[in-house]
Amino acid sequence: MGTITNVAGIDIGGTNTVCGIIDVSGKVVGKAQFKTASLASYPKYASKLTETVKNLAGKHSVELKGVGIGAPNANYYTGNIETAANLPWKGTLRLKDDMENNLGIPVTITNDANAAAHGELIFGAARGMKNFIMLTLGTGVGSGIVIDGRVLYGHTGFAGELGHVIMVENGRICGCGRKGCLEAYASATGIVKTAMEFLEDGSNPSSLRSVQAEKLNSYILSQHAESGDPIALKTFDVTARMLAIAITNSVLFSSPEAIILSGGLARAGTLLTDPLAEHIDDFIMPVFRGSFQVLHTALPESDAAILGAASLAIG
Amino acid sequence: MGTITNVAGIDIGGTNTVCGIIDVSGKVVGKAQFKTASLASYPKYASKLTETVKNLAGKHSVELKGVGIGAPNANYYTGNIETAANLPWKGTLRLKDDMENNLGIPVTITNDANAAAHGELIFGAARGMKNFIMLTLGTGVGSGIVIDGRVLYGHTGFAGELGHVIMVENGRICGCGRKGCLEAYASATGIVKTAMEFLEDGSNPSSLRSVQAEKLNSYILSQHAESGDPIALKTFDVTARMLAIAITNSVLFSSPEAIILSGGLARAGTLLTDPLAEHIDDFIMPVFRGSFQVLHTALPESDAAILGAASLAIG
Repeated sequence: MGTITNVAGIDIGGTNTVCGIIDVSGKVVGKAQFKTASLASYPKYASKLTETVKNLAGKHSVELKGVGIGAPNANYYTGNIETAANLPWKGTLRLKDDMENNLGIPVTITNDANAAAHGELIFGAARGMKNFIMLTLGTGVGSGIVIDGRVLYGHTGFAGELGHVIMVENGRICGCGRKGCLEAYASATGIVKTAMEFLEDGSNPSSLRSVQAEKLNSYILSQHAESGDPIALKTFDVTARMLAIAITNSVLFSSPEAIILSGGLARAGTLLTDPLAEHIDDFIMPVFRGSFQVLHTALPESDAAILGAASLAIG
Repeated sequence: MGTITNVAGIDIGGTNTVCGIIDVSGKVVGKAQFKTASLASYPKYASKLTETVKNLAGKHSVELKGVGIGAPNANYYTGNIETAANLPWKGTLRLKDDMENNLGIPVTITNDANAAAHGELIFGAARGMKNFIMLTLGTGVGSGIVIDGRVLYGHTGFAGELGHVIMVENGRICGCGRKGCLEAYASATGIVKTAMEFLEDGSNPSSLRSVQAEKLNSYILSQHAESGDPIALKTFDVTARMLAIAITNSVLFSSPEAIILSGGLARAGTLLTDPLAEHIDDFIMPVFRGSFQVLHTALPESDAAILGAASLAIG
């Protein structure tokens, strides 16, 4: 057995389940993964997960102090995954209780966005902060809110769903079935929709017209914006403007010291954050001007989900 | 000296400064008030305030355990009032420190909206709650947010300014100088502006046309709505719709168990809350449906500000 205290982090996605063991400094000791849907039932899945964690600990000769799990629709209070649309097993999955019984150590579970925020708090850009908001601008928009050094769960356990704040009444249809959500505009998929809307007006010249519509993504958009394409630049500007309103409204709510961005759209870097800073300056209330920073995640993309989940087992 | 523990509450407004002594059950033992602007300088104001509190305690033979103060632009962390637009003395007023020196007992200070929320927590509709949001729909819209049983102050001390979340990009001018804030629509003054806009279209019949424009207020609007006037009813409906979006967005943020309404517009009662419930039902994410109540303040209007301020000295 090793002398350093180790914990496991588990990132449960619709496609892959990734397990990792880290030490308390945030160093990844080892990882293993399997296809989530390769198990025919939830009990078989829980067994496979247990076995994977045990094997990984054995292989690296470490004693685990605890396990943290990031999973879609996971409720921190109940320890259950509740009717997750992108997992093959429906209903309530009592994963925290089952894993604690199987492993005999404490297990903490929350959704992936909250796990990501906690990872930034323990290992990333928010170390030493008490109040911040993490926004993951990926296929959707996930958020995790930290207040006085703790992830905000609220009365239900589901607090921090900023991807679904309504930005435009009767606006663009969102994946959640509602209309005008932030996610429908300021995600890696939302920004593509915005570009497509601009391209519908055939009179605007754009290098994006050479890209097949189904191949357009936020990375290609950023390449064309970097080359100075006016439609691509305008697309980043209006997306940043929508995000700026959401961010300034969130600042009015909890007065964080930082907004931390991650996810595919955030990888556009200053193409997004330069117009974002400009629009935030337009929209912010004077009393909050200069009171918060907009930062990028400080965790390596390949390990961010594991580090976030594992951090839950640390504190 | 009395045997019951007493605290003082001070409500500082642009017009009046009201002091009250309460016992720990929330009973108002005595009150005194004076005109805020009747004192020529801030030092004279602080002396007058000290004298008023001491006289009141002497008159009722009580020993004060602490003092709570609700004041515009008051910062809980610093204890200072910082450049309040509606007070006659500018700059930073070190009121907490000055009152503690003068009285020799602990003094707590925050803005009036946060004091109101704390009052509901200790004495009102939120007793026993851990997470709720208070919205005061008056001349402006004030808010106080309680998370895990404590008022949310955030990094700056100014968290909880929901009156100024931007609801409409480039919308109606707000008193804060920005555009499209909730306060510009869902306050007692905002709803009058909405009615006036509807009345500008002269083709709509309305009993409101018999009211002089400068006399129109939210109370008169509610009277006409109760009599079935279509413009007045439509005005309440669109106001409730805007408020419903702000409330559902706030629920996504902190997942409270209640939204508590107070202020002039809230006195319209079911004229506001019936369409509000309907629109909330339209806008809410399924996971939050039924997870929170919309309640009215449980504190008597005449003493709410004193009770809120005094409650700060209780815990």
